[in-house]
Amino acid sequence: MTSAAATLRVLREQKPLVHQITNYVVMNETANATLAIGALPVMAHAREEVEEMARIASSLVLNIGTLSPHWVEAMALAGATATARGIPVVLDPVGAGATEYRTTTAFQLLDVVGVTVLRGNAGEIATLVGAEAEVRGVESIGAGLEPAELARTAAQRLGVVASVTGPVDHVSDGERVLAVANGHKLLATVTGTGCMSSALTGCFLAAKPDAPLEAAAEALAAFGVAAEDAASGAAGPGTFHARLYDALYALDPATLDDRTHIEEL
Amino acid sequence: MTSAAATLRVLREQKPLVHQITNYVVMNETANATLAIGALPVMAHAREEVEEMARIASSLVLNIGTLSPHWVEAMALAGATATARGIPVVLDPVGAGATEYRTTTAFQLLDVVGVTVLRGNAGEIATLVGAEAEVRGVESIGAGLEPAELARTAAQRLGVVASVTGPVDHVSDGERVLAVANGHKLLATVTGTGCMSSALTGCFLAAKPDAPLEAAAEALAAFGVAAEDAASGAAGPGTFHARLYDALYALDPATLDDRTHIEEL
Amino acid sequence: MTSAAATLRVLREQKPLVHQITNYVVMNETANATLAIGALPVMAHAREEVEEMARIASSLVLNIGTLSPHWVEAMALAGATATARGIPVVLDPVGAGATEYRTTTAFQLLDVVGVTVLRGNAGEIATLVGAEAEVRGVESIGAGLEPAELARTAAQRLGVVASVTGPVDHVSDGERVLAVANGHKLLATVTGTGCMSSALTGCFLAAKPDAPLEAAAEALAAFGVAAEDAASGAAGPGTFHARLYDALYALDPATLDDRTHIEEL
Repeated sequence: MTSAAATLRVLREQKPLVHQITNYVVMNETANATLAIGALPVMAHAREEVEEMARIASSLVLNIGTLSPHWVEAMALAGATATARGIPVVLDPVGAGATEYRTTTAFQLLDVVGVTVLRGNAGEIATLVGAEAEVRGVESIGAGLEPAELARTAAQRLGVVASVTGPVDHVSDGERVLAVANGHKLLATVTGTGCMSSALTGCFLAAKPDAPLEAAAEALAAFGVAAEDAASGAAGPGTFHARLYDALYALDPATLDDRTHIEEL
Repeated sequence: MTSAAATLRVLREQKPLVHQITNYVVMNETANATLAIGALPVMAHAREEVEEMARIASSLVLNIGTLSPHWVEAMALAGATATARGIPVVLDPVGAGATEYRTTTAFQLLDVVGVTVLRGNAGEIATLVGAEAEVRGVESIGAGLEPAELARTAAQRLGVVASVTGPVDHVSDGERVLAVANGHKLLATVTGTGCMSSALTGCFLAAKPDAPLEAAAEALAAFGVAAEDAASGAAGPGTFHARLYDALYALDPATLDDRTHIEEL
Repeated sequence: MTSAAATLRVLREQKPLVHQITNYVVMNETANATLAIGALPVMAHAREEVEEMARIASSLVLNIGTLSPHWVEAMALAGATATARGIPVVLDPVGAGATEYRTTTAFQLLDVVGVTVLRGNAGEIATLVGAEAEVRGVESIGAGLEPAELARTAAQRLGVVASVTGPVDHVSDGERVLAVANGHKLLATVTGTGCMSSALTGCFLAAKPDAPLEAAAEALAAFGVAAEDAASGAAGPGTFHARLYDALYALDPATLDDRTHIEEL
């Protein structure tokens, strides 16, 4: 059953350690989102320690936003360790489709890591299933499939839970598709909010490792509700951004499920 | 003709992709400033992808704030690609004059890249024209030339549009000099505001590639007006910083040209 | 004698340059905290320039939060240079105890650098004195010694001023122990506040290099007072974070000593 509130309660009680190998642009932001929701972030990328760190974590988040060879190697090492231990892994293929290097790296990680949830925008995910896609830098301009169909296809072909974010998010395990209709347009005015949603997916997966479809949808719904709260009273992207952490921290399990819009298609 | 408002209108309509290879300290901030003004940032520094990314961008911003050999090599590669394609390039020589490595790297990039706009503080730019300069860390303490003369000299000697920021900014193409008298002293209390001004210079250049002198001055004027708005009601550097993105996002072309103080000397 | 106000006055007058080789997550934050308190930060990590930069700085802060071999090598080079010149050095052993690599690196730096102040949480410091410790990611879960005893023991065994932060901070030179009872629980909801306290320790050391025990305690007290101010009126971690820089900037030497709680045990 899907209840973002129930998972949030577990998360805040367990305070799971979420190991993140992510990009330089958003490290502070994803760490703060992780702390604000109630989990513990740890950033560690050296090949000398990523396996040891991955082993003690409750989930692992890999993000290729500012990739380079050493970092990709570390992601593969940490990911393989997590996979071998049954620790859930989120992959955020930032900019797949924009350059050959990003696309190739995303496939390489999908190959050597047992990715639990693949979280990206429509252009990135469409690139990875070979559908028509337009990615401009790290922005999705268009995709050749409707998002629900895209999520289902990606899940089936890549053997993951596919989490395609956009105005409405679509999450699929290849059979079921959950649509999440929370969020706010100010999210698109702050860099790294996609990366934050991947980090929060890691947090919810850590609290609900046996139901990744639901955990992924709940994470997006909770983040969307927080964005709605943050937007109310924000004067623009900067104050919205600061208020987003306030809102994640203040998310109330007593009212959360009344506010999330998670629908099975 | 100089009209920050007209250029801002074009920028917001075109949403140009601005490729930035910049320092670790300010990546999030320059990406957010780029988004807030209405352009699309992309951060990519791996030698494996910088040429491909530079080719699809409308401008390129190089910033040596936390340089190291791999990054400098990537800047040179991306810069040469942009130059060959006629894509405008901004160089921010952060800390030139503070260490030999920074000074040498700035000259190396000026040598292999067709830099369109060189944006720095007085100490950095004075260092690069061999004038008396004092740089302490990344802070300009003093320069041996008056800023208008410094900008003109740098433009002539280095074959760039020189954009020298300070209490009043001076931008020159070697003949004309534009002085920009917008901004607020709180800018000096937040790290990376110089880097943001370079990123915004890249945004304006992308929208007005054929008039780099005007584009560079307009970018500084628009940023200065936003800083004035952000300062009003800010309680200090932290709330000013958050409000700065609000203000960039809210810049109104209908009133902007009445508020900018761009004067030809 | 201990007076945070007196040291803050000196700091703001001298505007010391504080060279920081720190982690990717918090670079912007520690630079902004340094600026807000009144000093000048400079981030530089390339082996090509760290020695030159360290030589012109008034203090050096080393932080292993996202360590990798090149960075550790640069920290050792910069640290050795600072030591040879009598420039005070702060070491923040982020995550020591969480992985072997972090623990080993902290010992290596303690070996080759004349560390003036070792600033960490109880779990990290306990790890470095061989006491029972539990570190989860970069979070201290527990330590086998009481914090005052831990600080004294660490100072004696490692030949440093040990600054152990927690609900109450304990700073010791091996003989005396100062307890600092300022701060706010919201500090634990924002990533990098420990790193900021290390950066501020570097600022205060630069202004009071001959009394590192007092300087370290004063830095924590001043930071704690700023946190108390920031928390008042904050709606959660995000607005607290923004207000923290406002509060550091607004710290008033005229009232500061009445508000700090520094007690010799």
